[in-house]
Amino acid sequence: MNTIGVKYRFTSFGESHGPAVGGVIDGCPSGLHIDMDAIRADLRRRKRGDDITAGVSARAVKEADEVEWLSGLLDGVTLGTPIAFLIRNTDARPEDYEALKNVYRPGHADYTYEAKYGIRDVRGGGRASARETAARVVAGAIAKQLLQAKGITVKAELSTVGGLTMGQVADNRVVGYADLQEEIRKAQADNDSIGGIVSCVISGVPAGCGEPIFDKVQARLAYAMLSINACKGFEYGVGFASAEHRGSEINHISGGIAGGITDGTDITFRVVFKPTPSIGIPGRHDACVAVRAVPVVEAMAAMIVCDYLIKS
Amino acid sequence: MNTIGVKYRFTSFGESHGPAVGGVIDGCPSGLHIDMDAIRADLRRRKRGDDITAGVSARAVKEADEVEWLSGLLDGVTLGTPIAFLIRNTDARPEDYEALKNVYRPGHADYTYEAKYGIRDVRGGGRASARETAARVVAGAIAKQLLQAKGITVKAELSTVGGLTMGQVADNRVVGYADLQEEIRKAQADNDSIGGIVSCVISGVPAGCGEPIFDKVQARLAYAMLSINACKGFEYGVGFASAEHRGSEINHISGGIAGGITDGTDITFRVVFKPTPSIGIPGRHDACVAVRAVPVVEAMAAMIVCDYLIKS
Amino acid sequence: MNTIGVKYRFTSFGESHGPAVGGVIDGCPSGLHIDMDAIRADLRRRKRGDDITAGVSARAVKEADEVEWLSGLLDGVTLGTPIAFLIRNTDARPEDYEALKNVYRPGHADYTYEAKYGIRDVRGGGRASARETAARVVAGAIAKQLLQAKGITVKAELSTVGGLTMGQVADNRVVGYADLQEEIRKAQADNDSIGGIVSCVISGVPAGCGEPIFDKVQARLAYAMLSINACKGFEYGVGFASAEHRGSEINHISGGIAGGITDGTDITFRVVFKPTPSIGIPGRHDACVAVRAVPVVEAMAAMIVCDYLIKS
Amino acid sequence: MNTIGVKYRFTSFGESHGPAVGGVIDGCPSGLHIDMDAIRADLRRRKRGDDITAGVSARAVKEADEVEWLSGLLDGVTLGTPIAFLIRNTDARPEDYEALKNVYRPGHADYTYEAKYGIRDVRGGGRASARETAARVVAGAIAKQLLQAKGITVKAELSTVGGLTMGQVADNRVVGYADLQEEIRKAQADNDSIGGIVSCVISGVPAGCGEPIFDKVQARLAYAMLSINACKGFEYGVGFASAEHRGSEINHISGGIAGGITDGTDITFRVVFKPTPSIGIPGRHDACVAVRAVPVVEAMAAMIVCDYLIKS
Repeated sequence: MNTIGVKYRFTSFGESHGPAVGGVIDGCPSGLHIDMDAIRADLRRRKRGDDITAGVSARAVKEADEVEWLSGLLDGVTLGTPIAFLIRNTDARPEDYEALKNVYRPGHADYTYEAKYGIRDVRGGGRASARETAARVVAGAIAKQLLQAKGITVKAELSTVGGLTMGQVADNRVVGYADLQEEIRKAQADNDSIGGIVSCVISGVPAGCGEPIFDKVQARLAYAMLSINACKGFEYGVGFASAEHRGSEINHISGGIAGGITDGTDITFRVVFKPTPSIGIPGRHDACVAVRAVPVVEAMAAMIVCDYLIKS
Repeated sequence: MNTIGVKYRFTSFGESHGPAVGGVIDGCPSGLHIDMDAIRADLRRRKRGDDITAGVSARAVKEADEVEWLSGLLDGVTLGTPIAFLIRNTDARPEDYEALKNVYRPGHADYTYEAKYGIRDVRGGGRASARETAARVVAGAIAKQLLQAKGITVKAELSTVGGLTMGQVADNRVVGYADLQEEIRKAQADNDSIGGIVSCVISGVPAGCGEPIFDKVQARLAYAMLSINACKGFEYGVGFASAEHRGSEINHISGGIAGGITDGTDITFRVVFKPTPSIGIPGRHDACVAVRAVPVVEAMAAMIVCDYLIKS
Repeated sequence: MNTIGVKYRFTSFGESHGPAVGGVIDGCPSGLHIDMDAIRADLRRRKRGDDITAGVSARAVKEADEVEWLSGLLDGVTLGTPIAFLIRNTDARPEDYEALKNVYRPGHADYTYEAKYGIRDVRGGGRASARETAARVVAGAIAKQLLQAKGITVKAELSTVGGLTMGQVADNRVVGYADLQEEIRKAQADNDSIGGIVSCVISGVPAGCGEPIFDKVQARLAYAMLSINACKGFEYGVGFASAEHRGSEINHISGGIAGGITDGTDITFRVVFKPTPSIGIPGRHDACVAVRAVPVVEAMAAMIVCDYLIKS
Repeated sequence: MNTIGVKYRFTSFGESHGPAVGGVIDGCPSGLHIDMDAIRADLRRRKRGDDITAGVSARAVKEADEVEWLSGLLDGVTLGTPIAFLIRNTDARPEDYEALKNVYRPGHADYTYEAKYGIRDVRGGGRASARETAARVVAGAIAKQLLQAKGITVKAELSTVGGLTMGQVADNRVVGYADLQEEIRKAQADNDSIGGIVSCVISGVPAGCGEPIFDKVQARLAYAMLSINACKGFEYGVGFASAEHRGSEINHISGGIAGGITDGTDITFRVVFKPTPSIGIPGRHDACVAVRAVPVVEAMAAMIVCDYLIKS
């Protein structure tokens, strides 16, 4: 299914090389003044990977995708009705894909899609393309604005590339942005790709938000993150490092959630993205998909938090 | 909410120190002969942590919980109607908890529960207790039997405790079961607890099972695993190690899923559990909750796979 | 599926001649003091059809079903956790059904069940039996108590039997309870059954409750009513009589709902029940199932209203 | 919420006087060749009420709405991905509504909407308008084509207007189409409106389709029908006439469903629509909304049946 959420419910549509991608947001309360510039900014981050990859991504472009609003808004204010929008696929180039018609691309989802649907949309892998995440970013940007009005912020950033982690010491100095950027450049120079980790902090969520058994906050965050292409894992609080520690050392660290319910402190989690499989095709791949995933992580996290907070 | 799944739908109920825990399984097809011994075996694994912790767990007991079947079965064969069952809480000792009435236990979910519900069931933390997982194990054992009939197996095991990982070399020798067991014993001797990782392999799932956008197989597995108490993270395939590698090195490893849909190879994932917070209370804690989580991981994974495979 | 509701979510289980019927209520807020006598009263109405059929129903019995509470309550007060309960089937008589094993009973769901499940539980038609509604009555009685605390009441009554409607004039006098009762007695004397209509009024629901498109209040009420055995139709406000009128005559009558959303006035609807098909078996049928459906109508309506009002 | 269905899932969006109405269909299998002419024909029926109201409806127009396809199709064949579409609101006239800004229109949902949303979109009543049903008709037309491929047909028609019912005898002759048409003309001549009943037959559904407890076929049909504007009631099989009969007279009539599950015979139901409240505004109302509801009834019924039949 192409819908996520119960109260803040987002339905995504569109093939990467069809006429458009877009979505429908159901459950957004009325009366919210939408900040269109903030949406454009997030779309631009998704498209060119923000400053960290400036001049790096082969797909980098200056302009943001243009959102066309179909419903749910009047003079930029939400009506409480479904918000539908679309983004035209102006750069659809089906001819590029003719050559791929009878070829399974290694590492792509071509084979599994055909096994499931009995048909293969050769136009860019259909829904599997990262193009689909543009619609998520729009829906997430609106969710972030809803949260902002309640004093809640969602902030993600690239924290690890290759073996380098921001703020840690390597080669006798503290790793910074420029180091991660350099690591990506090296991979690209080798016509290769490289994995990365995105760290996210959600601040301002009041205590008591969540569900104790199956709809734990961490469970729904994990679900949302693993629904992003190329994501291979999720951890919150101490995460996988828990296995290396004793209770006496780490039990004061909650990661913002206890028993599936928020405790009022910052929610902290990390998401890992594998290197893109589209290597060896000069000018047609992202050296580090984690970079462009940063606003998508924020978008998905914001939608999940909204889903808990909206009183329907 | 206390329900998981859409087609194989499990609803859990029961407080750890109320009369019973139990559940309702909705969507199990008719005609399955239930192997009651297999269910008892899984309950026993959950209760005493299998051989690896024999003589280790303070709560270890010989007998399995007894399941009372309320509906959905006739002569041990499923009818296609909801399967309801309960397990009595024979060892409910509310008096132990009287002393805790006005105390927030550090690291427990007491505070967040009260923030959410405005009430606190002092009888053992209500639903937060690991006791609730007994019902999951029953529902998962039936799911495993459904899968078995289709040639699908779900097998989990403890793979890492502290810094030791099964099959890896430490101190010039290959780490084995006995080493993990020793590590747990040491933590318990220190009246402390220790974290651990459970690895799981699902074999025999046909290609084409899953959904491409939000109900990706990995997303629902992550959701299910993060719904287990003390779980702090989930990864599949290469997982977090992806961040340390280039695409050319690891893109042949799928973890059994591509684009959210199974590719017919083994699905492999790992789940980390933090050390239990109930330390410092002699005889009242598990030194390594990951041990008892092993059958719970299998149960949750089996239910998720069933949910994809049942044709409704 | 055997679950109804989203926020006040009820899951039903149990075959009529298995060990028990019962249910799980998920979403009931904490802190409600349950009035057990009120629940017993509703169960008794369901069982013997209240005073209107005293001495009429062949299945009439004095005692109410006994509810055993499994979870969700502490000293009769809700905890906010799932409320599970069961009612033992003390009068299960599987031997009566041996003779029916290879016979399709006319008018029963035997044929359609076997078409769906490929198996037939001969013990009383499995889930199709009216026995299952006992669990609904329990869940609905709790919902009514939740509503009562908000000043909302749900009241149903038998209003039409055969051609006679309460309050209307027939044979030069106003039809009353005794007339409906007499009509039922006559059908029973003829070893036949008779249809009836139940009218229901929901008072006190504030304006603004409902959804404008698919989850209209009337749509969910209709869904709930048509889920009751033997129900053949639902109408609200002017109902089917609308077809006989012009707008100028009836547009001031709202039935309590406009555009799918409550307007603050009484919600009024009517539900029709066909005559039971179990005719010709002396002492084994209800002459008018609509009588015993009265508390079931109230129960289902109360659950639907709760679902809209609970803030989750 | 603005979504209906589980496996054939339709999400509707759009205000009557915003830029567009439209929808997203999720779950439609791949490989279906869409008959665009059939969709246009249904849209035309919805818009001008087919031949029965030719020259009658004040809103009657010659051309069908134009559907713009956004995703899910390649060369007119479904891809298995979400099918998104929109219909531009070419005749949006917000200026007409300026005058209504501070007026509650009697019989409209203006008051209840404001009570719910705290805001009122004066542009044509927002979502409450019948305009929204155009998107349902598109989604239903595709559902009908899916069913057609399985030999299933869904056929609705206006059967009662005022006191006249097709096929019955009135004034010593059998009532026909022309009589219903005349009845509508008379109401319109009086600047009034009139109620009507739509009868629907679903043929070819195999036995064994449905659910025995809450998702009974009749329950979901009732839910779908009561979600149509102006619908006041639903009945199937013998319907409300059941109350006037004894079991011995009518128990052989199933209406195509027994115990919530189809029995393989025709499913027959009837839906009543009240007279429109927009009376007294010359040229701005439909004399009998039931006429234009006919294709909407078919659309909703087809979607429900698809939801049961799609194997996901």
